[in-house]
Amino acid sequence: MNTIGHIFRLTTFGESHGAAIGGVIDGCPSQLKLDFNFIDSELNRRRTAQNPTTSQRKEPDRIEWLSGLFNGVTLGTPIAFLVRNVDANLADYEALKDVYRPSHADFTYEQKYGLRDWRGGGRASARTTLPIVVAGAIAKQILKGKGIEILAEVTEKGNAQQAQQEGDTVGGVVECRIVGAPAGLGEPMFGKFSAELAHAMFSLPAVKGFEVGDGFALAKMKGSEANDTFINKDGKITTATNHSGGIQGGISNGNDIVFRVAFKPIPSLAMPQQTVNRAGEPCKITIEGRHDVCALPRAVVLVEALAALVTVDELISSSRSY
Amino acid sequence: MNTIGHIFRLTTFGESHGAAIGGVIDGCPSQLKLDFNFIDSELNRRRTAQNPTTSQRKEPDRIEWLSGLFNGVTLGTPIAFLVRNVDANLADYEALKDVYRPSHADFTYEQKYGLRDWRGGGRASARTTLPIVVAGAIAKQILKGKGIEILAEVTEKGNAQQAQQEGDTVGGVVECRIVGAPAGLGEPMFGKFSAELAHAMFSLPAVKGFEVGDGFALAKMKGSEANDTFINKDGKITTATNHSGGIQGGISNGNDIVFRVAFKPIPSLAMPQQTVNRAGEPCKITIEGRHDVCALPRAVVLVEALAALVTVDELISSSRSY
Amino acid sequence: MNTIGHIFRLTTFGESHGAAIGGVIDGCPSQLKLDFNFIDSELNRRRTAQNPTTSQRKEPDRIEWLSGLFNGVTLGTPIAFLVRNVDANLADYEALKDVYRPSHADFTYEQKYGLRDWRGGGRASARTTLPIVVAGAIAKQILKGKGIEILAEVTEKGNAQQAQQEGDTVGGVVECRIVGAPAGLGEPMFGKFSAELAHAMFSLPAVKGFEVGDGFALAKMKGSEANDTFINKDGKITTATNHSGGIQGGISNGNDIVFRVAFKPIPSLAMPQQTVNRAGEPCKITIEGRHDVCALPRAVVLVEALAALVTVDELISSSRSY
Amino acid sequence: MNTIGHIFRLTTFGESHGAAIGGVIDGCPSQLKLDFNFIDSELNRRRTAQNPTTSQRKEPDRIEWLSGLFNGVTLGTPIAFLVRNVDANLADYEALKDVYRPSHADFTYEQKYGLRDWRGGGRASARTTLPIVVAGAIAKQILKGKGIEILAEVTEKGNAQQAQQEGDTVGGVVECRIVGAPAGLGEPMFGKFSAELAHAMFSLPAVKGFEVGDGFALAKMKGSEANDTFINKDGKITTATNHSGGIQGGISNGNDIVFRVAFKPIPSLAMPQQTVNRAGEPCKITIEGRHDVCALPRAVVLVEALAALVTVDELISSSRSY
Repeated sequence: MNTIGHIFRLTTFGESHGAAIGGVIDGCPSQLKLDFNFIDSELNRRRTAQNPTTSQRKEPDRIEWLSGLFNGVTLGTPIAFLVRNVDANLADYEALKDVYRPSHADFTYEQKYGLRDWRGGGRASARTTLPIVVAGAIAKQILKGKGIEILAEVTEKGNAQQAQQEGDTVGGVVECRIVGAPAGLGEPMFGKFSAELAHAMFSLPAVKGFEVGDGFALAKMKGSEANDTFINKDGKITTATNHSGGIQGGISNGNDIVFRVAFKPIPSLAMPQQTVNRAGEPCKITIEGRHDVCALPRAVVLVEALAALVTVDELISSSRSY
Repeated sequence: MNTIGHIFRLTTFGESHGAAIGGVIDGCPSQLKLDFNFIDSELNRRRTAQNPTTSQRKEPDRIEWLSGLFNGVTLGTPIAFLVRNVDANLADYEALKDVYRPSHADFTYEQKYGLRDWRGGGRASARTTLPIVVAGAIAKQILKGKGIEILAEVTEKGNAQQAQQEGDTVGGVVECRIVGAPAGLGEPMFGKFSAELAHAMFSLPAVKGFEVGDGFALAKMKGSEANDTFINKDGKITTATNHSGGIQGGISNGNDIVFRVAFKPIPSLAMPQQTVNRAGEPCKITIEGRHDVCALPRAVVLVEALAALVTVDELISSSRSY
Repeated sequence: MNTIGHIFRLTTFGESHGAAIGGVIDGCPSQLKLDFNFIDSELNRRRTAQNPTTSQRKEPDRIEWLSGLFNGVTLGTPIAFLVRNVDANLADYEALKDVYRPSHADFTYEQKYGLRDWRGGGRASARTTLPIVVAGAIAKQILKGKGIEILAEVTEKGNAQQAQQEGDTVGGVVECRIVGAPAGLGEPMFGKFSAELAHAMFSLPAVKGFEVGDGFALAKMKGSEANDTFINKDGKITTATNHSGGIQGGISNGNDIVFRVAFKPIPSLAMPQQTVNRAGEPCKITIEGRHDVCALPRAVVLVEALAALVTVDELISSSRSY
Repeated sequence: MNTIGHIFRLTTFGESHGAAIGGVIDGCPSQLKLDFNFIDSELNRRRTAQNPTTSQRKEPDRIEWLSGLFNGVTLGTPIAFLVRNVDANLADYEALKDVYRPSHADFTYEQKYGLRDWRGGGRASARTTLPIVVAGAIAKQILKGKGIEILAEVTEKGNAQQAQQEGDTVGGVVECRIVGAPAGLGEPMFGKFSAELAHAMFSLPAVKGFEVGDGFALAKMKGSEANDTFINKDGKITTATNHSGGIQGGISNGNDIVFRVAFKPIPSLAMPQQTVNRAGEPCKITIEGRHDVCALPRAVVLVEALAALVTVDELISSSRSY
């Protein structure tokens, strides 16, 4: 549904051009003093218009905190928050309400629900990832207190400037590294750490691939090349290499957890495209309005945020003492 | 934990050399007449020793049905089943009980649980995937009644025969296709069809990568190359291409659902390897006993089984009428 | 946690004197045109100050709808809503921030979370039940479309007017009847309809007892008195009596579902009470401010709302066709 | 479905006269040495034929442990177990396969599933509670290590010997006390300790009422009578009385947790009863075979077992440190 996490859980809500988007974090530890400046700075990393190739929508993105806090300290009760949608220019979208944009979710939403909010992609808009960043920032703060850091970067990207001139878009790959996570995180059968990360990353719009450690390259290796030899490093058992990406048998082994996420190009093109309308009649569309040429710059903070959510969830689950 | 699925749910249990392995299927529709021959034939596809490069363990793998059936028809109550473990040769494993096999789960299990069943990999053994095949066979039967078929094949594989001579192992890639699934399956935010599939596939041992449609290749394309144009084909809206792999916005669009799963080489090598023991002392190990050179031949039926479980689960979830 | 329901799910948030209280409904069917007047009228039933023996807090209780709706029609996406808390008089509560009110949740919250929002009971305030009424009103609308009605009434109540004069409070019993529910609702083992109703009702503040059908009185009957004889009434199988309260083996049998909920007296007394403070020192408190003498009048709509949530959830779960 | 618990979870399976009944415990802490003698002794408490008024079925009830254990110590992996059904006398039941026994689940199961296993009540048989006792015995062992004890007793019961002579049955009430549980257990909104206990107890066959502390009697009290005054007893904050039954605001307060469960009389009567068959035709039935006159003696261990499951689940959930 619209909830991620088992113990530390985020439920999100909101459509791109509805009244607001937001979330409810349930299961956050109490007595945590939130660093609101950090949360805002993370939101800024996600913000539209951060560079010439990302879209032009300008929202102040001011968070209203609704519950779960008392003098800035978490109560252990649900932390609800919202951000108003203020910059809606519906004229941009009205032309598209009866046609299916290629490789968008217009068609599939209508198949599933019988209707869709056609204003700016509705629930399928990338704007709905905003609450993930807010929750991720809180998760990162918890992780920081445990000495765990999450660092993502774009490692592969199409030529955005050229694509922009052509009315086209590009995709890319984000690599993420979870540094400092203890060994023993993850459930070994159906809740493997890798499976939880994969599930989380595929929740992002446009994600089409996910790999851990050497990933698909491992399929071409021999066992003798792929295996990570255990060594004793200063009295601590670790591995000489990290082809496994820090996860073995689904459980973290104490090394850096490393994974990559493949994003397809943004499907909203400035150039004309062929498609059909609701009646099945062929038509041509040109998608007006503000759209990114490349989502990668802001995908970085999203990948980090989801990695943080998964890691905190695993950390809390594993911290139980009986 | 050890349960997969939301409505159609499988809980598995068992260690490689414990008394038995098995599962409980909850949420299976009632009044379904099970095709036991088909279930057995699926198990045979998974069976060890099916070709020269897979391992030599010979288990009869006879299923004992414990509950949920009345004259071979499902009651709607939990379907429990087990398969006995009869071919345990503990001597093979005793030598390894204090050492950590490279890229196996020995070390991580001990970090998580403080102990491990060292007999044949215990819960981390590939044998524990057997219940998935049983449940998958039942799921396939349900899908067949809906005109949905699931077909996987090995599309990439190392040179197994050569690796065997060298005491080495190889990995590979399995591609799977879900044919005939209706549009509208999958939850759009945190339960995207792609996310559920990714989660399921990463539950398999040795899986390190997953991609949908053109996957990682999409990261290198332009939007104009990657987009799937909607067309009207004989009165039905579909897409001219299928770069998206049948899933858009996390929801099936009626096309074939296509995905690929990358398996690392089996980490148990016949050649000697360097590692450490529990005390952190360096040592050399040679893994005796029966082990596959390549898991790919039997990964095929596992990938299909999990795809079937996910698809049935989505199908039931989506079939609710109010 | 803070979520109720399996398919039709309500997550609530908010403290009595925080910025807002509200909820997120996930799993609501799409294409439902909401009757906002009805929702408001249900909220009015719950409103404070509805009769002389309920408390004096006056909140406008205006609902802000945040998401999930498009022109008043449900999208199938999460329906988020909030109500602002505007009538906070903190002076009433500051005197109580270091003492534990008898039979309130002050002490237990502090034991669990290490802190509490002492303003008006915080998360434990009866005000936090407001989102239940909103979601319940939507659920009732769905049920109405299926010919199912939910009717509760106070069947037992202390002498409120006299208690008020004495600075005391009273409790009582609410009986609820679900009329028109089909046979076959409920899961037979750990999700019995009766168990789900019990769980829901015990979520309300002050609830200390729950019984189905003849309930505790059945413990004193003989089987021959307690059994409900099946009869054929106009071609339909039903029972001559309804000692079972419409549920047998945990599953609805098509008769009226009947249950009763016992509420203890409101623990906030106008008279002085003995207690201890956080340091464990004995002290006397008098609880100033606005407090009900009897919660029963507004418990009626809460019981109905939760019954509606449970029934819709069961109805959707049971409506799956394969 | 057929699973109870959030972290410490029991899934049960089995019909009365199928091959076996059993369960899978997931989330049990590792490194626990099971006391098998204690588990057997708990099973004996539940066993049929323990006194003249309980039924005559004689099953050896020998547990086969299938997984999750290594030399009698828990691995942290799922603990699966089964008990064979050996004493099936189908002739007793065949006469009843087309009729609906009054106040049994025959009719409702058929309404829900379209068929039922008519042999001895199938899944609705009291025999299916056996796995609860096994899991409860393990939970009790965990609790014992924490100084927590669970003690239930029959506090109200009809005249069983007289009822037996009349071919009738009786019900009764079981009171249960959880001694030594720390303050702070339970979730305050939809997972109140009282709600979890209510849900668990209503999972037992024949349960029709549940109350915590003074329960329904509280509905007749004034607040000044019902409130539990906080006192300082030897430096520890506790309450002078325990009308609340150890739970305030849904969370344990450190006092004994006290609750009562009402059981209706067993609906299987030795005397003839009027009913209808599947075709809706009136008929008379006499239920042959082995049946209890009163379920209360063995309900005691069931109530304790479920209370133990809930308490361990809460204890593990609450033991998370961040």
